[in-house]
Amino acid sequence: MKILIIGLGIIGGGYAMALKEAGYTKVYGVDKNPDTLYKAKKLGIIKEGFTNEDEIISHVDLVVLAIYPNLVKDFIVRNKEKFKENAIITDVTGIKELFIHDIIEILPEDIDFVFAHPMAGREKKGIDYATNEVFKGANFLIIKTEKNKEENLKLIEKLAYEMGFKHIKRTSPQFHDEMIAFTSQLPHVLAVALINSDIEGRNTGEFIGDSYRDLTRIANMNEKLWSLLFLGNKENLLKVMNRFEKEFDEIKKSIEEDDEEKLQELFIKSTKRREKL
Amino acid sequence: MKILIIGLGIIGGGYAMALKEAGYTKVYGVDKNPDTLYKAKKLGIIKEGFTNEDEIISHVDLVVLAIYPNLVKDFIVRNKEKFKENAIITDVTGIKELFIHDIIEILPEDIDFVFAHPMAGREKKGIDYATNEVFKGANFLIIKTEKNKEENLKLIEKLAYEMGFKHIKRTSPQFHDEMIAFTSQLPHVLAVALINSDIEGRNTGEFIGDSYRDLTRIANMNEKLWSLLFLGNKENLLKVMNRFEKEFDEIKKSIEEDDEEKLQELFIKSTKRREKL
Repeated sequence: MKILIIGLGIIGGGYAMALKEAGYTKVYGVDKNPDTLYKAKKLGIIKEGFTNEDEIISHVDLVVLAIYPNLVKDFIVRNKEKFKENAIITDVTGIKELFIHDIIEILPEDIDFVFAHPMAGREKKGIDYATNEVFKGANFLIIKTEKNKEENLKLIEKLAYEMGFKHIKRTSPQFHDEMIAFTSQLPHVLAVALINSDIEGRNTGEFIGDSYRDLTRIANMNEKLWSLLFLGNKENLLKVMNRFEKEFDEIKKSIEEDDEEKLQELFIKSTKRREKL
Repeated sequence: MKILIIGLGIIGGGYAMALKEAGYTKVYGVDKNPDTLYKAKKLGIIKEGFTNEDEIISHVDLVVLAIYPNLVKDFIVRNKEKFKENAIITDVTGIKELFIHDIIEILPEDIDFVFAHPMAGREKKGIDYATNEVFKGANFLIIKTEKNKEENLKLIEKLAYEMGFKHIKRTSPQFHDEMIAFTSQLPHVLAVALINSDIEGRNTGEFIGDSYRDLTRIANMNEKLWSLLFLGNKENLLKVMNRFEKEFDEIKKSIEEDDEEKLQELFIKSTKRREKL
């Protein structure tokens, strides 16, 4: 199987590493940055690199789109007539509703797009930080559409296991985006708001324990990618932000009113939920 | 030097372990639970255990109070005439203004209370979860009062280094409580509000990456201790909660208005701050 990865950044590069480790030898890469291609070749994780897909696209069986969310649809529009017969496409994008319906509308019958979301990242960008270590034991979501062929879903699932992912789950685009707003986007909102609410110039670092360190780790983020993810999933994100605010206000009210019993109740609830996780 | 630890829970037990590892052999323990004393003796981390302090208090050079914040002042009131001459007292409490002024008021001249806050914890309680591993490399705060003798401050600092703490800093009660509201209490508020805002019965665990896991870890908390800490530092906590809300609202507004530029600005700010940490 010939595999082409579009975008050799932190995730695309990680995929190339994982595929190499899993024994795949015919992996090709596209990246607009020649330096990145040079590095990928030197690492031995791609067989050949290209600064655009024109030359290689019609020769590969599987295309992995590891590019920004706003570029996914453009890529399909540009290449829909060029894919190899019965080619499979997959992606790594954190939101799906933004493009999934448009894409399944315009794809030729024989081309199957198995939308996917590897739930593993890093607070960095670029191939220099890419690693397949983060995939090991992580969650992997497949966002199924009515057009997907069972054999292709199975192929991507097999690939995910081979790359080290542990829990693989099929879900719908709508439910995916709703859940992701809560489990991934809202935590990023909280991390950013937390660290941005600090008062500058007071050596906060000397007063922290693990909690502040853990909660702000993800405040280090790729601003271009995350603003696209937030705005591309706007309605869902605002909904979970509102739900969060209600809980936050509940705690605030209990503190204002010295309501120890209510506070304990909220903490018992959160403890139970965390233990169940 | 004879050392007495009052309360052999997760922190007191950890102190006993750290002191043993540092070579201190005359460490005694008080705990109202005989089972805990039995376990501590079996672990070899105390020389002798007592269910109350009456018998031992006047024989020790250093008393470590590892008890709930609301019990610290009572302990001093009860024992102020019983301490050994020139005894040193220290504590491990997460807030200080609640009792620090009252205590230095009533303590005899020769007794020196060096208030301290080891910035390391666990989401559990009891001696079964105690470990000195969490102290290694952690921050340690000394909350200095006008009555402290320099030699005693130095002794507690030396002890903290010997127990594995890495960064030791002296600060004032007021600044301590203000900073702790931000670096420790606010993160706990966010973790609780986040996990409590989930909708039940939808297998959230299958949709999470590291971010949700990290941000909710501390939602598993000792409800009695944390409601005391929150209410005992109410004004400071409400202040940082308000600052957080302003930043949260800023992000929300940017999303509502599709203001990509503003969002990127906020993310660049948070990234810079996190990298500086």
